[in-house]
Amino acid sequence: MFQNDAFRALDRHECLSLLAKVPVGRVVYTRQALPAVLPINFSLDTDASVLLHTSPDSDLVRAIDGVVVAFEADEFDAASRSGWSVVVTGRATVVTDPVEHERLSDAGPTSWMPLGDAVFVRIESEMLTGRELRGTHGTR
Amino acid sequence: MFQNDAFRALDRHECLSLLAKVPVGRVVYTRQALPAVLPINFSLDTDASVLLHTSPDSDLVRAIDGVVVAFEADEFDAASRSGWSVVVTGRATVVTDPVEHERLSDAGPTSWMPLGDAVFVRIESEMLTGRELRGTHGTR
Repeated sequence: MFQNDAFRALDRHECLSLLAKVPVGRVVYTRQALPAVLPINFSLDTDASVLLHTSPDSDLVRAIDGVVVAFEADEFDAASRSGWSVVVTGRATVVTDPVEHERLSDAGPTSWMPLGDAVFVRIESEMLTGRELRGTHGTR
Repeated sequence: MFQNDAFRALDRHECLSLLAKVPVGRVVYTRQALPAVLPINFSLDTDASVLLHTSPDSDLVRAIDGVVVAFEADEFDAASRSGWSVVVTGRATVVTDPVEHERLSDAGPTSWMPLGDAVFVRIESEMLTGRELRGTHGTR
C-alpha cells in the first residue's frame, strides 16, 4: 500500500503544484456517524486553501460547515504502477462575505454540474501532505 | 458537485463492474479523531467485499481493524466532464483464517509496493452506492 517507506514524501510546493493539475478531488467527512466521501470539483485559492462550489442546501454543506475535513486528490497509472496523492486537512467553512463571494464567482472553481444559486466552501490548509509512488514491481 | 439530481444512480451490477476496472481505491477512516484517506490497491472478492493487501503492523490496520470504513473508487474525464464514483461502506477486518489467507495469496489483490509478510483486510460490502456523471456544461 502507499504508506510505507517505498514512496517519497512531497514538499509543500510539490503538493500544491500537483493539486493544481487535477479538476476533481474528494471531500472526506463524517455523515450520520459514518465515514463519507464525495468527489467534487475544486480550485486552490492563493493561500493554498481548497475551494468548493456547491448548492447551499446540500447535505454536504450541512455536514461540513465548521467541521474539520480531509480533501484528497491523486493520479495513478496502472501501466507504470506509479502515482501521487495529496491530502489537505482543515476546517471547512461556507464563504459568507459578499465581496469574497463575488471574487470567487469570477475566479473560483468551475462546477461540472449546473448549480444555480451556489455557495463556496473553503477548506483551510491546516495540514498538507503528499506522497509520490515511483514505479515498482507488484507482489503477491 | 456530484451529489444533486443531475447524475444517474448506478445499480449494484454497474457498481461492481466499474470497481473491477480500476486498480486503486481510497480507504476513508478516522485516525486520531480526524478524517483520514489513503489510496491503496484492492480487489473484489466473489461476495463483493473489498480486499486490501497490506503490512500487518501498519497504522492503517491498527486504525481500521473491526471498524466501519468507506472505500471509494472513481474515474473522471476533464475533457468530457464526465465520470463515475462508487462507494463501499462496511466493517473492515483482518483475515486471520490461514486457509482463507492462502486462497487470497493466490487470487487476491496485487500490491504495487513490496510488502514482505502481508495481511489481507476485508471490507464487507454492507452499503454499495454509485453515481455516474454524464458530460455537462460548467457553470460559474
